[in-house]
Amino acid sequence: MFATAKIGRSLSKQAYKTEVSELRTQLLEAQLALKEKDVPVYVIIAGIEGAGKGEVVNRLDEWLDARGVNVYAFWDETDEERQRPPAWRFWRAMPGRGEIGVFFGGWYQCPMEQAFKGKWSDTDLEQYLRGVRELERMLINDDAVIVKCWYHFAEDVQRKRLKSLSRSDRSRWKMLPKKSKFSEQYARFEEVADIVVRETDIGRAPWHIIEATDGRYRDTTTGRILVTSMQHALTAPEHDERRLQDSPSGSNGDILPNSPEARVTLLDRIDLDQTIDRNDYRERLEKLQNELNELAWKAYSNKISTVLVFEGVDAAGKGGAIRRVTQAVDSRLREVIPIAAPTDEEKAHHYLWRFWRHVPRAGRMTVFDRSWYGRVLVERVEGYTSHANWARAYLEINDFEEQLTDAGVIVQKFWLQISKEEQLSRFEARQNTPYKRYKITEEDWRNRDKWDEYRDAVNEMLARTSARHAPWNLIAGNDKRFARIQVLETVVNALRERV
Amino acid sequence: MFATAKIGRSLSKQAYKTEVSELRTQLLEAQLALKEKDVPVYVIIAGIEGAGKGEVVNRLDEWLDARGVNVYAFWDETDEERQRPPAWRFWRAMPGRGEIGVFFGGWYQCPMEQAFKGKWSDTDLEQYLRGVRELERMLINDDAVIVKCWYHFAEDVQRKRLKSLSRSDRSRWKMLPKKSKFSEQYARFEEVADIVVRETDIGRAPWHIIEATDGRYRDTTTGRILVTSMQHALTAPEHDERRLQDSPSGSNGDILPNSPEARVTLLDRIDLDQTIDRNDYRERLEKLQNELNELAWKAYSNKISTVLVFEGVDAAGKGGAIRRVTQAVDSRLREVIPIAAPTDEEKAHHYLWRFWRHVPRAGRMTVFDRSWYGRVLVERVEGYTSHANWARAYLEINDFEEQLTDAGVIVQKFWLQISKEEQLSRFEARQNTPYKRYKITEEDWRNRDKWDEYRDAVNEMLARTSARHAPWNLIAGNDKRFARIQVLETVVNALRERV
Repeated sequence: MFATAKIGRSLSKQAYKTEVSELRTQLLEAQLALKEKDVPVYVIIAGIEGAGKGEVVNRLDEWLDARGVNVYAFWDETDEERQRPPAWRFWRAMPGRGEIGVFFGGWYQCPMEQAFKGKWSDTDLEQYLRGVRELERMLINDDAVIVKCWYHFAEDVQRKRLKSLSRSDRSRWKMLPKKSKFSEQYARFEEVADIVVRETDIGRAPWHIIEATDGRYRDTTTGRILVTSMQHALTAPEHDERRLQDSPSGSNGDILPNSPEARVTLLDRIDLDQTIDRNDYRERLEKLQNELNELAWKAYSNKISTVLVFEGVDAAGKGGAIRRVTQAVDSRLREVIPIAAPTDEEKAHHYLWRFWRHVPRAGRMTVFDRSWYGRVLVERVEGYTSHANWARAYLEINDFEEQLTDAGVIVQKFWLQISKEEQLSRFEARQNTPYKRYKITEEDWRNRDKWDEYRDAVNEMLARTSARHAPWNLIAGNDKRFARIQVLETVVNALRERV
Repeated sequence: MFATAKIGRSLSKQAYKTEVSELRTQLLEAQLALKEKDVPVYVIIAGIEGAGKGEVVNRLDEWLDARGVNVYAFWDETDEERQRPPAWRFWRAMPGRGEIGVFFGGWYQCPMEQAFKGKWSDTDLEQYLRGVRELERMLINDDAVIVKCWYHFAEDVQRKRLKSLSRSDRSRWKMLPKKSKFSEQYARFEEVADIVVRETDIGRAPWHIIEATDGRYRDTTTGRILVTSMQHALTAPEHDERRLQDSPSGSNGDILPNSPEARVTLLDRIDLDQTIDRNDYRERLEKLQNELNELAWKAYSNKISTVLVFEGVDAAGKGGAIRRVTQAVDSRLREVIPIAAPTDEEKAHHYLWRFWRHVPRAGRMTVFDRSWYGRVLVERVEGYTSHANWARAYLEINDFEEQLTDAGVIVQKFWLQISKEEQLSRFEARQNTPYKRYKITEEDWRNRDKWDEYRDAVNEMLARTSARHAPWNLIAGNDKRFARIQVLETVVNALRERV
């Protein structure tokens, strides 16, 4: 695969000058145009040690309008990063729409290192790379341009570079072959690189292998590739078409056969009228809350994080149920994130970005009052996003939650359901209680009119996003007390099983 | 001071019920009204161990609209927090305008603990508290409401609480007196508390001492205080008037006597026509960049951070000078933050928030391409902010930079100056070079028309914000090469002195 990067290509000073002048103009024009179109660009700079990746980064910084370019090097992790799923640090650095993120090593740095040093088996490596493909596909579906450059050269070139380095320089490179085993380690590096490049060379985010023997050739080739990729994005067909073709496993809105029998759903099967006796409630509430308090402290000691997701129809009692949980958990250990309209920074990123922001660090609990499921509920029903976008979201959501649970996070999701009659009486009660009046708005009444559409969306959501590791718990909510006990019991059981 | 919290006040169940119903309505109304007015509210919950601060937090969460409330507990620091000035973690948690931040312990947790455990002397404590006063004053000047609640009770009440705690509960409290030395340590806690409360009991952010013997009394009193403070903010006089009275040492726009001689300023004294020979430039550039590269790595090892600020007239060559620095510093060690229009999250906070976000962690370098000085330059000249706001900013900026340098950060500020004629010829050159054309906009020409106003603003800025620990370096920019060498030399010297 890398033979093409061992030819000894170079560019004369004169040719370079001519080329660069034209290139810069084109790069700037493309950058401006993509900014106009709100397209985020990811440039990934990876490759063999000593190829001058840092110099390439500096060159791009010079040629592009630096005010729209952010350079990120994924190098030593902080403990905040180590305490969360591996992708968290990348989500922190994602460029916004219209910006260019230059990722030094990017998500390829860690797998290369682990495999080169023999800490990962080929299976580990391949599993990681599967995640990388998912991530890149997701970004592309969100209109991103991803340009991946792999810098390479022949063994004797690398050997020469090594000689010219001071000792302290050498120590900063983690994948530089040792002098005594040069050939062997050079070959090992290529083996790993071969897997990495091959496994992640996907159609819309292909690798570009660039010979790095000559700096001028290396830099202009990079610039040329970047220009071409950016220009291509400007003339690409409209997003929605492109996407649909790409998500065969996304929703077409009908996971259930279209017959009356099939329409009897999970939601219909909840016995909404289950109740609990008031004294019984008090007793169990106290017991459960005491246990939860202890469990939360144990989870803290054991560094096990918890993510709780609350969704439900309006007035189903989410707030009250959440409060019964948070009352029990020391406020140093938990955070409640209410999800309302996104800020403009949030809008400038993939819709999952705003949730990644709040992934808890080790041993903490984050409660989402509404969540990423808005994409397949309110955004779907109200038409706030395109069909392609919400249809694709099931996969993205499942993948996101899997990343959490893979990292050891406890994930429990609650759907709070009440009957249409119960909702009406709660709406009316809210309007008659001074300190509850703020809770009811015109929007609530409008949503109520769309009861059936929401029901269908919920049913599909439950069908497509229930997983053993991140289950949906359907909570019968007509009796608030009953619902709260159900929620607390579920949380307590989930924690008890793990801590 | 705390005698008032040892009376044994309580509230009957019946009185509580009546009180709460009214209180909740008023709290919600005030919360909504302050949201409308974009006022941020800080509620600080502090006091003696065992007073039920956690319960108060839960109660507020219940009474207020939880969707606008964020609870933050400042407890164990992460390494990202430890690697920055102490206030960084608070800036991360600041509520936006219209939101309520409930700060568990807040900036009072750490000084209380350090002093109680005897790790800090009274002088350390007082110095820290001076910083707290500055911070609170700054937030209030930015329209914030700060409500500080101190919970307290008598020694025998605390002793009783201690008995009812399990062993693991006890271990979570860091300032609970040991059984054997109870009276002594209770008294010590009060001593420290007395200093803390007294030193930070400032006019517009007073402490409220609340007896915590009885939960119902404690919670309703808190609610009442919060309502009153919020309502007061709603009827307060207009901000600008209030502020001006409060910043006697802020700018009235005339730090220099109004005579022609006094008008000869630092800016006029720069010899703009200094040049450097082209060969000489190449040689020194290479030497300085090599040295800077080594120094940056050493700073990384020694965990010394650097903040560089670049300001200057349009076309003065900031970008080129910055690039000569970043080229030399490994991209894993540095970040460039270009400052353009703020995002809406940034606008929702104090104007310094967006800069605190980017304070480097230990051993890294952050380069600001334009900076917090925008407040006293473009915002002042263009009238984007009120006179009171920019006049006050000098103090806030000096305080911010002092916090950086107190934490060991190297701070160097560069003002790049060119002559008006040189600017004209650069503007024209930009219009004639295809890949530079994007750099010149209508705005640049408009700014040029305000040359004299900017000059006055710059002169005042230089006069008011030059400090030995965070100096302004005036760079003669007519010869770009000369300017770059000056900048590099300054950075290299600053680092060499410290690492």
